[in-house]
Amino acid sequence: MKVITSAREMQDFTVKERKSGRTVGFVPTMGYLHEGHMTLIKQARAENDIVVISIFVNPLQFGPNEDFDAYPRDFEHDQKMATGQNVDILFYPSTEEMYPSEPSLSVKVKSRVNVLCGRKRSGHFDGVATVLVKLFNIIMPDRAYFGLKDAQQVAVVAGLIHDFNFPIELIPVEIVREADGLAKSSRNVYLTAKERVEAPHLYKSLKIAKLEIQNGLRNPSKIEAIIRKHISNHTVGEIDYVEIYSYPELEVLPEISGKIIIAVAVKFTKARLIDNITFVV
Amino acid sequence: MKVITSAREMQDFTVKERKSGRTVGFVPTMGYLHEGHMTLIKQARAENDIVVISIFVNPLQFGPNEDFDAYPRDFEHDQKMATGQNVDILFYPSTEEMYPSEPSLSVKVKSRVNVLCGRKRSGHFDGVATVLVKLFNIIMPDRAYFGLKDAQQVAVVAGLIHDFNFPIELIPVEIVREADGLAKSSRNVYLTAKERVEAPHLYKSLKIAKLEIQNGLRNPSKIEAIIRKHISNHTVGEIDYVEIYSYPELEVLPEISGKIIIAVAVKFTKARLIDNITFVV
Repeated sequence: MKVITSAREMQDFTVKERKSGRTVGFVPTMGYLHEGHMTLIKQARAENDIVVISIFVNPLQFGPNEDFDAYPRDFEHDQKMATGQNVDILFYPSTEEMYPSEPSLSVKVKSRVNVLCGRKRSGHFDGVATVLVKLFNIIMPDRAYFGLKDAQQVAVVAGLIHDFNFPIELIPVEIVREADGLAKSSRNVYLTAKERVEAPHLYKSLKIAKLEIQNGLRNPSKIEAIIRKHISNHTVGEIDYVEIYSYPELEVLPEISGKIIIAVAVKFTKARLIDNITFVV
Repeated sequence: MKVITSAREMQDFTVKERKSGRTVGFVPTMGYLHEGHMTLIKQARAENDIVVISIFVNPLQFGPNEDFDAYPRDFEHDQKMATGQNVDILFYPSTEEMYPSEPSLSVKVKSRVNVLCGRKRSGHFDGVATVLVKLFNIIMPDRAYFGLKDAQQVAVVAGLIHDFNFPIELIPVEIVREADGLAKSSRNVYLTAKERVEAPHLYKSLKIAKLEIQNGLRNPSKIEAIIRKHISNHTVGEIDYVEIYSYPELEVLPEISGKIIIAVAVKFTKARLIDNITFVV
């Protein structure tokens, strides 16, 4: 695995690879790699000739109350993890390399953002979209891999690729779950023993909702109520949100139809868990 | 010359050409081609294997008081002009092809815009930058050609390419002038006979300013005053602005140094003329 820190060198590499007819798969990350990233990398490895991952903690996507400096970083660990998955290129630019001067422009995301987790993170997706435009232009992948755990991010990236005509195929990767259905997350370790037993009920509530919809229920409020009731009855968690939208547009549906997302966020004592399912009705 | 109206077909064409190692030069236009465009196309023709020009009247860059519908269009004329210059591909998308749905995001230009002509055209360069991101991704040129007559647009595009890491070389093309120095413009025909004789004094005032700077004058206000006096003394035109900035950052300079632009806009009876020079002090 080669580590590249220069944007120009990265660009030159990909231009050459693509001219040779080789396909490039790209997994953007902020580092501190875990099992979720490995799933993305494995799929990229299986589907492309060259696999590039980036590690860049992007200051633009942190809000004023979110601690950019405290974001966990462990480059040696990341390097080992990536090498273990036969990653070809680890793109690891400095902040100065990515933002050498005050940018004269940025991307403004107008829809898909003021819902779900984005509602409380004003400007977050502007930062995500801006850095992705840069990374897409630097790496020029054929395919880009994003996990559906953050389904809102996948929706924003789908809009970015479509609306800006990037010649890139977006590959959304399914959520990886524990045997009991709990979505894998580095935050799960912060659950108490009791909460850990209860936590799979987030996913169970989503499956129950899906079954109700498949059986003919079409009223979003009624479905939300069923989910809220199930989570309240089976966990001590405090529900942050239960929301249902069209996907990937993330628009309110008066009646359930087409492709939808059902997403939940629940606060436990020391961990806030999120989960979602997307499917076509 | 081939006319392509589909973004996907255009993209497929360029991917193929670039894989074959051929270089692509791109001249974006809003059509109604004139001599200025021909200069850009000629230079693109001389420097690239493939020349692509686009004709697209971009609604996003028209303000609420600017008449998008009244913008002149003459596709047959344009087609003849482009064929005459051996253009390979004329990319001619419909508005629906470029904006099939309400975009979920756009480019927001933060600096270089609230000066010169941009001061009165709020949002104009956001529209320019947004359509250029799309066109750059659709056409994927090696080089993109822009005329320095609109030096502010060139500055914004320089920021776009640099800050978003587009693998594109920006080629600014010098202003084409009449024998007496007047910058060529389709608006020159609206000058009265007397105004047409006076109009070359815009360029003359810029050359006088340049000479003063080369002789050691460094105070922007004094240089502006010299230009204003020259234009007032030699024309009946009403000065709209005389401005001096760093280039391409378009920032105010307390003292002249580095690469600068001196730009003027002057209103005559039925035509508002602009002119500028950029040079390194």
